[in-house]
Amino acid sequence: MTKGLKQRLAKMAAPDLNKIELALEQNLSPNVQLVKEIASHLLFSGGKRLRPLLMIHSARLCGDHNHFQIEFSTIFEYLHAATLLHDDVVDEADIRRGKKAAHKKWSAAKVVLTGDFLLALSLDIAAKTKEPDIISVIAKITRDMSQGEIDQLAKKGNLDLSEQEYARIIERKTAVLIQGACKSGAILAKAGKEQENALSQYGFHLGMAFQMADDLLDYTASAKELGKNPGADMREGKLTLPLIHSLANADPDDKKWMQDAIAATPFNPDQFEKFKEKLYAYKGIEYTQQKAKGHVKKAKACLDDFHDCLSRQFLCLIADYSIERKV
Amino acid sequence: MTKGLKQRLAKMAAPDLNKIELALEQNLSPNVQLVKEIASHLLFSGGKRLRPLLMIHSARLCGDHNHFQIEFSTIFEYLHAATLLHDDVVDEADIRRGKKAAHKKWSAAKVVLTGDFLLALSLDIAAKTKEPDIISVIAKITRDMSQGEIDQLAKKGNLDLSEQEYARIIERKTAVLIQGACKSGAILAKAGKEQENALSQYGFHLGMAFQMADDLLDYTASAKELGKNPGADMREGKLTLPLIHSLANADPDDKKWMQDAIAATPFNPDQFEKFKEKLYAYKGIEYTQQKAKGHVKKAKACLDDFHDCLSRQFLCLIADYSIERKV
Repeated sequence: MTKGLKQRLAKMAAPDLNKIELALEQNLSPNVQLVKEIASHLLFSGGKRLRPLLMIHSARLCGDHNHFQIEFSTIFEYLHAATLLHDDVVDEADIRRGKKAAHKKWSAAKVVLTGDFLLALSLDIAAKTKEPDIISVIAKITRDMSQGEIDQLAKKGNLDLSEQEYARIIERKTAVLIQGACKSGAILAKAGKEQENALSQYGFHLGMAFQMADDLLDYTASAKELGKNPGADMREGKLTLPLIHSLANADPDDKKWMQDAIAATPFNPDQFEKFKEKLYAYKGIEYTQQKAKGHVKKAKACLDDFHDCLSRQFLCLIADYSIERKV
Repeated sequence: MTKGLKQRLAKMAAPDLNKIELALEQNLSPNVQLVKEIASHLLFSGGKRLRPLLMIHSARLCGDHNHFQIEFSTIFEYLHAATLLHDDVVDEADIRRGKKAAHKKWSAAKVVLTGDFLLALSLDIAAKTKEPDIISVIAKITRDMSQGEIDQLAKKGNLDLSEQEYARIIERKTAVLIQGACKSGAILAKAGKEQENALSQYGFHLGMAFQMADDLLDYTASAKELGKNPGADMREGKLTLPLIHSLANADPDDKKWMQDAIAATPFNPDQFEKFKEKLYAYKGIEYTQQKAKGHVKKAKACLDDFHDCLSRQFLCLIADYSIERKV
């Protein structure tokens, strides 16, 4: 069933994907070789191009069939890559998309600067639209994302993180970019405010569901599926919803045991299975799944007033896929 | 004489400076506390606000007296601060503007993200102008600067750096931002292409002179004047014009001695005075001074066709000051 969903999406996306890949490469070409190498290491290592595709289908849903769509859509992949590059340095992650993280191959300095370059490249493409509203959307995305990341860093290791604080973090860390991609599609198509808001809300809920699903996978997926060891979040003291909900409902002894396990350095990998059992027992996994499903439902409801077409079908399927995927 | 110049400039800048300081603070206020703290550490530690002032006077020279000038001018201080924050991480500098570098007080991760945030903030303000040309200028600045920094990093320790490569590096590292500030002033004032180009060229030459003067000060100023130890560039293997010219003209023995001194780790501070003597002997200092003077002359010539007014006087004085300053 999930596999069927994935295949349908892949088939629908294929014609655009080729063009997106080409545009991603062409925009990078006239630049300093080292920048191109570092950016390509991440950009061409199997990204799903979710954000460009969302932007393109949002624009089409509002009646836009301009050829500039494809080039414009690369903005959201470059922005995504820029934040991943900066995150790699921030997180000191070793592995990204199954490959050595960029800063393990090049110095952190070069990686930071390549991230800056990709930000600037996005901006440059955005300026071509001559649409100040789009520039504002992109500025807001960048601002919110950096603030969200800083906030998350500042709260790392805080074992009392509330569900509300978590929601605020993932909104800025993930949802604003997806929201911005969908909203920009509507603006590019010169849609009315109503359609623009509907797609903006669609993107917000999709982004929230997407990040919750990611946070679930960090506990439920295998190392092979993830391309890295599961449990990375808890090892880094990053509290996500499955854990927040479980801590809030655990009896005092279990709560203390879980908190000690998070704080322990070095982390004992044998404990991870026991830790997971607690997340199931205190319904942290189930609760997060329900919350994510709620966002998917809301996302799809935002599409109700649009006419039925391939792009609407695509956006609906993506919403379903966001929580059913295994990677 | 230099002191008189500095005092005249300070007097001319004073009324705007108060407003710039206020605007710099107000734009930061509604944001995450930690971001504000990190950004303020650098932003309010004695910057001269050169770039905002250049933008304001460029706009006025083209007849603009809009009240948005002040808020708009902060873009160029935020952009400057963003690159300084990222540079601190890149350079692993310990001291910046006489204070502990930000990343020594906070983690590199937080500093990188605060830099991102300031970039986004600049962009946000730029979007308010609803002028796509301004957005393009800002995008180009950011792109050139990150490429220039990466290029400089890649060439660090390269003892064969040519004068041409050096010029290309400092153009992107310093001149494009100053050029962009002046050019944006003209665009904001809706000046014609001729005036826009004249101010753009003025900014370019001023920026080149400014960086050459900086590179001279790294050898000629005292630790007290610099707020850090002189000779930082050579210790980091960063070749600047005084050294490039001297290496090109040194006899083989002296050339080898200088190259060995640069490559030596740990660097022997006693050798620094002898090293400086070589730079004077092989006229690296004098040559760089001449080159910087040439740029100042060209910068001032770009102002010839503007009517005489306070703003033109200010821009002329700044050009003189760029190479006469001691810090």
